Amino acid sequence: MTITQAAPPGVATSAAGRFTLSAQALDSAVTPNAVFRDWFDAQRRTNRYDVRRIPFSELVGWHFEDATGNLVHDSGQFFSVEGLSLRTEWDGHEHSWSQPIINQPEVGILGIVVKEFDGVLHCLMQAKMEPGNVDTVQLSPTVQATRSNYTGVHKGAAVRYIEYFTPPRARSRVLYDSLQSEQGSWFLRKRNRNMLVEAVGDVPPHEDFVWLTLGQINQLLYESNVINMDARTVLSMIPALTGSGPSLHSTEHVLSRLTEIKARRQLVQRTIPLNRVQRWRRTDHEIVHDTGHHFTVIAASVAAANREVKSWTQPLLAPAEQGLSAFLIRRIGGVPHLLAHARSEAGVLDVAELGPTVQCQPGRALSLPRHQQPRYLDVVLGADPGRLLYDTVQSEEGGRFHHAGNRYVLMEVGEEFPLDVPEDFTWVTASQLSGLVRHSNYLNVEARTLLTGLRAAWSLGGVYA
Amino acid sequence: MTITQAAPPGVATSAAGRFTLSAQALDSAVTPNAVFRDWFDAQRRTNRYDVRRIPFSELVGWHFEDATGNLVHDSGQFFSVEGLSLRTEWDGHEHSWSQPIINQPEVGILGIVVKEFDGVLHCLMQAKMEPGNVDTVQLSPTVQATRSNYTGVHKGAAVRYIEYFTPPRARSRVLYDSLQSEQGSWFLRKRNRNMLVEAVGDVPPHEDFVWLTLGQINQLLYESNVINMDARTVLSMIPALTGSGPSLHSTEHVLSRLTEIKARRQLVQRTIPLNRVQRWRRTDHEIVHDTGHHFTVIAASVAAANREVKSWTQPLLAPAEQGLSAFLIRRIGGVPHLLAHARSEAGVLDVAELGPTVQCQPGRALSLPRHQQPRYLDVVLGADPGRLLYDTVQSEEGGRFHHAGNRYVLMEVGEEFPLDVPEDFTWVTASQLSGLVRHSNYLNVEARTLLTGLRAAWSLGGVYA
Repeated sequence: MTITQAAPPGVATSAAGRFTLSAQALDSAVTPNAVFRDWFDAQRRTNRYDVRRIPFSELVGWHFEDATGNLVHDSGQFFSVEGLSLRTEWDGHEHSWSQPIINQPEVGILGIVVKEFDGVLHCLMQAKMEPGNVDTVQLSPTVQATRSNYTGVHKGAAVRYIEYFTPPRARSRVLYDSLQSEQGSWFLRKRNRNMLVEAVGDVPPHEDFVWLTLGQINQLLYESNVINMDARTVLSMIPALTGSGPSLHSTEHVLSRLTEIKARRQLVQRTIPLNRVQRWRRTDHEIVHDTGHHFTVIAASVAAANREVKSWTQPLLAPAEQGLSAFLIRRIGGVPHLLAHARSEAGVLDVAELGPTVQCQPGRALSLPRHQQPRYLDVVLGADPGRLLYDTVQSEEGGRFHHAGNRYVLMEVGEEFPLDVPEDFTWVTASQLSGLVRHSNYLNVEARTLLTGLRAAWSLGGVYA
Repeated sequence: MTITQAAPPGVATSAAGRFTLSAQALDSAVTPNAVFRDWFDAQRRTNRYDVRRIPFSELVGWHFEDATGNLVHDSGQFFSVEGLSLRTEWDGHEHSWSQPIINQPEVGILGIVVKEFDGVLHCLMQAKMEPGNVDTVQLSPTVQATRSNYTGVHKGAAVRYIEYFTPPRARSRVLYDSLQSEQGSWFLRKRNRNMLVEAVGDVPPHEDFVWLTLGQINQLLYESNVINMDARTVLSMIPALTGSGPSLHSTEHVLSRLTEIKARRQLVQRTIPLNRVQRWRRTDHEIVHDTGHHFTVIAASVAAANREVKSWTQPLLAPAEQGLSAFLIRRIGGVPHLLAHARSEAGVLDVAELGPTVQCQPGRALSLPRHQQPRYLDVVLGADPGRLLYDTVQSEEGGRFHHAGNRYVLMEVGEEFPLDVPEDFTWVTASQLSGLVRHSNYLNVEARTLLTGLRAAWSLGGVYA
């Protein structure tokens, strides 16, 4: 068992080199895998939420506004469920619809503290309970806090380790820092601040937190529902580490293709009162589309022991079915390229972001006429399992979403797969995507989870491929 | 007189090198300066608009919506004047207001065709009439077209040279291409697609267009109201060419500072009916703030000869006074650094963009109590003229704004000027700003005009400094 490794000369001076070393450490004396497993099992055993669906009328602190029907918190804080009306035009096809959407116009912090032990970077991960999680406890970033959380609107305990992320940051230095979008079909222009900071000096321990190497985390990424969405998106800022080489298109060209889509595709978003949304109806217990597809908005009562606030009620968004997000990967000139799709989701900040090749709710997608089904869905669903580099169900944010599982797939295709793709698709290398993640709103959250999965797959190649 | 120059070996292979060469060409056999001057004078003499202010009731094709009071086009196209309600919180200070704002949810094209003549790049510039321009005709990009323009909603003539910018672009290749923001105080999340393309093969001439070198354009940038806003922003995508060297802060650090502002500064924007805007009133002739500050919305009747549509009426936004936009520039380790300010303007897409050190309407600013006046305004207003690298009045988009003049200033400060600045300011090199302009919504339009002015000042250093 390799616990730590000496740095090859020259490698460990850059952040990328140091993370490479951490990815190679598949176990660690700081938190040996067996110790982690016992600790995590105990966390899951002892920390449970009693989550009960309740009628909207039993929500405490939340109400439907008279004039609009919007579902809001009495304080005007946290988030609200409003209506969004959309009109799109692309390639001569017009499309209009309206839907409920979560409006949370504030930026939280998702941040991981890293620190070297015996020359190897470790990430400080938290066992965090979220009401919508399948197994209640998942591993989250060191800090996962809404602005209301960390500025005290919750009236709960102070957010542990927040001082590593907010000025003056006397005990840390910032490695990566950018705003990144979250689920565009469910959130209106939502972003969180994703940060990786390196601690300077000792970090006080706490029983709900563990230090893990990137190699340990990469292995956990092959299990379902262990590494939560917030951790996966922060980890996506770490460079891909391998798979580099000349790209089919220059980054200028990739940006220009995305600009072309943003300029030509019309997307007019307009917030409307929730009671003006068409084809959705509100019952005592849920807000639901008349087809039953998409998602429902429900109310839940949550009771627990070790969280900032001991018990509460809140709305949650429950997807109608498990989602599918998949990147097709093809070697071009020997270099792996991902097939990215410029997606316009309802709540997107800026017309389109690069998403996976396929991203949909497959049940609904397959119910559509063939020509309206997502491009390449058949390729992914018909895949030879031997082609799948990564195929794991992960869940989305359990603080807002109830049992929101997504099947994440990385699929290799051969040289028979055509390079010529429709104009809203483009081939990019992992290194190009890593460059774009330094900026906001280029990659959607599903693409970022897959980028994190890809780095894991490549790092573990010998073991897991 | 240098007309063209041979490229020094190796310089002219990169786009930056080729533009450097073009900047060194202060005159050109293709359009000699004297010929340009005669042509431009003739354009201004023969192409005039009769622009008359009219009461709103005389607008044709425009009306105030009953329910909202929004000023809209009967077709639902073009743009509308709506209300925007804002709430900001920064550094413990809350601020709320509402205002009229122009909503134009479509992306136009601002594009310049470039082509080598005798080995030197020339830009194809158009003499364009705009109703709000002080001298009616200014030099615009080759193409300056709203989406309605180039997709034919205007029912006017086809946009000349548009085929160099829209797919399949058989006769051009893209050099630079990105969406860039426009006036955030006046427009709701407005962007245009800024493009520089190089023509492949001959370009058919037209009497309203001329080929100019970057050196010729740079000289014209020292005159008022010749190079229009749309041209200035497209030109800002050309790298700074000089002034490079080590920066005080890494680009990661600059991005992190901006992310910090975006995460901590609250900016909640909500479109509201125009008739719900507070402290603004609508008369028969204008919509005006009760202090008379900021701007008015007016109606104009426009008659002309050589435009896509021969005569029309439209709303225009008329600023209450001439604006001031200034960058302070200080050498740090011998390398010039600009002092950028993270500004949150009402209609900004993403909380804040980097703007000039000072950007305000000085009359209004000086009417405020001293502690509320813009930081560094006194430094700019008290400047020794010998410190001014650039000091020219330019006007903003004459298609939407009536006589919107801005004084643009680049001012050198000495080493006595403190490096320590408030946290919403940061020192950046021109080369760092050029890197950011490859992406959207990092630099506001006033900063981009000044970046274009700075390249002109540096290129012409010997002549104009």
